[in-house]
Amino acid sequence: MRERDYIRYLRGFQNKPKEVLVGIGDDAAVIKLPRKDLYVLTTDMLLEGTHFCLKGGRDTLQRAPTSKCTIADVGRKAMACNISDVAAMGCRATLALVAISFPVFTKMGLARRLFQSMRQTALEYGVSIIGGDTISGKGPLCICITLLGRAEGLRPVTRSGARPGDAILVTGSLGGSILGSHLSFQPRMREALYLNKNYNLHSMIDISDGLSLDLGHILEESNVGALLLEGDIPVSRDARRLSRKTGLSPLHHALTDGEDYELLFTLDPREAERFLKKNPLRVPVTLIGYIRREKGLFLQSADGKLSKIRPQGYEHR
Amino acid sequence: MRERDYIRYLRGFQNKPKEVLVGIGDDAAVIKLPRKDLYVLTTDMLLEGTHFCLKGGRDTLQRAPTSKCTIADVGRKAMACNISDVAAMGCRATLALVAISFPVFTKMGLARRLFQSMRQTALEYGVSIIGGDTISGKGPLCICITLLGRAEGLRPVTRSGARPGDAILVTGSLGGSILGSHLSFQPRMREALYLNKNYNLHSMIDISDGLSLDLGHILEESNVGALLLEGDIPVSRDARRLSRKTGLSPLHHALTDGEDYELLFTLDPREAERFLKKNPLRVPVTLIGYIRREKGLFLQSADGKLSKIRPQGYEHR
Repeated sequence: MRERDYIRYLRGFQNKPKEVLVGIGDDAAVIKLPRKDLYVLTTDMLLEGTHFCLKGGRDTLQRAPTSKCTIADVGRKAMACNISDVAAMGCRATLALVAISFPVFTKMGLARRLFQSMRQTALEYGVSIIGGDTISGKGPLCICITLLGRAEGLRPVTRSGARPGDAILVTGSLGGSILGSHLSFQPRMREALYLNKNYNLHSMIDISDGLSLDLGHILEESNVGALLLEGDIPVSRDARRLSRKTGLSPLHHALTDGEDYELLFTLDPREAERFLKKNPLRVPVTLIGYIRREKGLFLQSADGKLSKIRPQGYEHR
Repeated sequence: MRERDYIRYLRGFQNKPKEVLVGIGDDAAVIKLPRKDLYVLTTDMLLEGTHFCLKGGRDTLQRAPTSKCTIADVGRKAMACNISDVAAMGCRATLALVAISFPVFTKMGLARRLFQSMRQTALEYGVSIIGGDTISGKGPLCICITLLGRAEGLRPVTRSGARPGDAILVTGSLGGSILGSHLSFQPRMREALYLNKNYNLHSMIDISDGLSLDLGHILEESNVGALLLEGDIPVSRDARRLSRKTGLSPLHHALTDGEDYELLFTLDPREAERFLKKNPLRVPVTLIGYIRREKGLFLQSADGKLSKIRPQGYEHR
C-alpha cells in the first residue's frame, strides 16, 4: 500500500471536535484549550512479537507474552492501553495521535482494519484521533499512540501520594489476562473519573505490570510500604483456569500476571469505607490492604502470617 | 540493558519547566497550560533502515535513503525533525514525549548516547522531555517523538491558506541533503516564529519530502497552482556535488531530494517585498515563484519557457 493513500483514507474518517482547529493532514494538529485546566500527556508503544503476536504472523519471540490475536485486537489494545494510562491519572482522555510503522508489503486491507479498530475504541471513550504518522520498513508492526487528557477541574492522581494508613483498593479481578482479557479489557476511565471526582484519592496506577509490581511503583514513588491481605485479593476465574495449566497458585497469577488494566488506588480508610458501602460503579471494587510507613511489600495470610513479596513476583521468607 | 534502569537514568536528566507538574515516571505527564492560547501536537516516527542506517549496523534496506550515521546523529535527527514540524506551523516547540523501541540486546551505552543526543537537541531549542515509553523487541531501532508546541498568541500557519498571487519563499538552499545536511540541519523554529510574528503568512510547510512534493502539499490543501522560477531556486552546494555523481541536474536535486528541513511559505507579494528588503534572519530567504489560480505546478526557465512538474519529480512536457 502507499502511505499517502492510507492517510487520505484516514482523513475520511476524521471526527474533529470543536477544540481541534486543524486535524490530520498538516504538519501538526492545532488545538484550542480554552479552559484553565490541567492536562495529561502519555505515549505508549506496542511492538509485534513483544506485546502481541498476529495470527498467521511470523515466528513468535520467546518472550512474547501473549496469545495470538487479530489485527483488530491489536488496534483495540493499542488504544485501550493508552486510555487506561490517562484513566490511571483520574483524567479524561480526549485527543490521540497515532504513529504506525508497517512492515513492508503490508496490505491496505490490514492497515484499514487496524485503523478502524483503533478508531472504534477511541470513539467508545470519546477520544478523537487528530493526527499521527505512517511509515513502513523492515521491521515488525509497531504502534505508538500519544494521548492528551484533561483533568476537568480535578487534581490528577499520581503514584506518589500514598500515605501510611491508606486503604489499598482495586477494581475488578486479577490474573490470567493471557487467556483473553489482555485484549478485551475495558479501560476504567469512567470509574477513575467518578472516583477522582467524589473521593480524595491519594495515589493511583493501572495494573499493567502486575499487582505486586505496580503497587511497588506506588510504594517507591510514595516512599512507603504496604500490607496486602491474601484472602481479600480478587483472583479472577482466568487466574484459576491458568493455574491448572501452570501449576502455580491462582494467587500467584493475580499478584504477578499483569495486563489486567484494573485501577489500583489508595485513599483514607474512612473514605474507602464510605465508597465501599455504596459502590455505584458497575465493576466490583475490593479493599486489599493498607499502606504502611515501614518499607517493603508484605502479604498477610488468613492465619495472620506475614510474608515478604518481591516486586517482580513473590516469595515466602 | 533493563528498561527500568534506563528510565531511572533518564529521570536523572529531567528538566521540568514550571508548567510541568508531573514529569517522567508516572502514568502520564501532567501539564498546566494557563494561558488561553493555541497549541499544536505532532508525532513523527523514525525507523532504522528506512530513515537512517547505523554505522556498523545490519545490512541496509534497498530503499534506505540515507548514508550511515552514529547513534548521536539519530537522536539529533529524531528530535530535530519534530521541532521542524512545529516550526512549520509557525509555533514554538515546548514539551516532548519520547517512545523508543530498542532491538533486543541493545547496550545501555548506546541507549544513553541516543538519549543524550535527543536531550541536547531539545535543550538547544528550549524543549523539555517530560515523558515517554521504552520497550524492546525483535525489530530495528524505532523512535517516536511527540511534540507539543504553543502558538504564543499567534495564528498557526497551515498548508491550506495559500492564495493566488502569493509569493513563494524558501529559507536556505536545497538539495543533496544525503551528503550530510539531513543529519546536521537546523530546524528553522526561530525563523518561523519571527516570520509568523511579523508577517501575515498564508501557508507554510517544512521541506521533508522535497520542494516539488511539499509545495504540492500546499497546492493541494489550498486548491491552487504555482509557478516556480527556475533560475531563482536556491540550489545547494551539496546538490551540485551530488549532481556530479548522479548525472542528474543540480536543479533536479534541489526540487526533489527532500530532508532539507527548510521553510517553504507563501504570503502577499508586498509583504514578501517588505521582508526581503531587510531580512534580519541569519539564513538567506529567496523568492522562488508565485501561487496561481490555475492548478498544477509549473517551472519557468530563464528564456520564459514553461514546463509542468509532477509532484514526485519533474519532467519537461
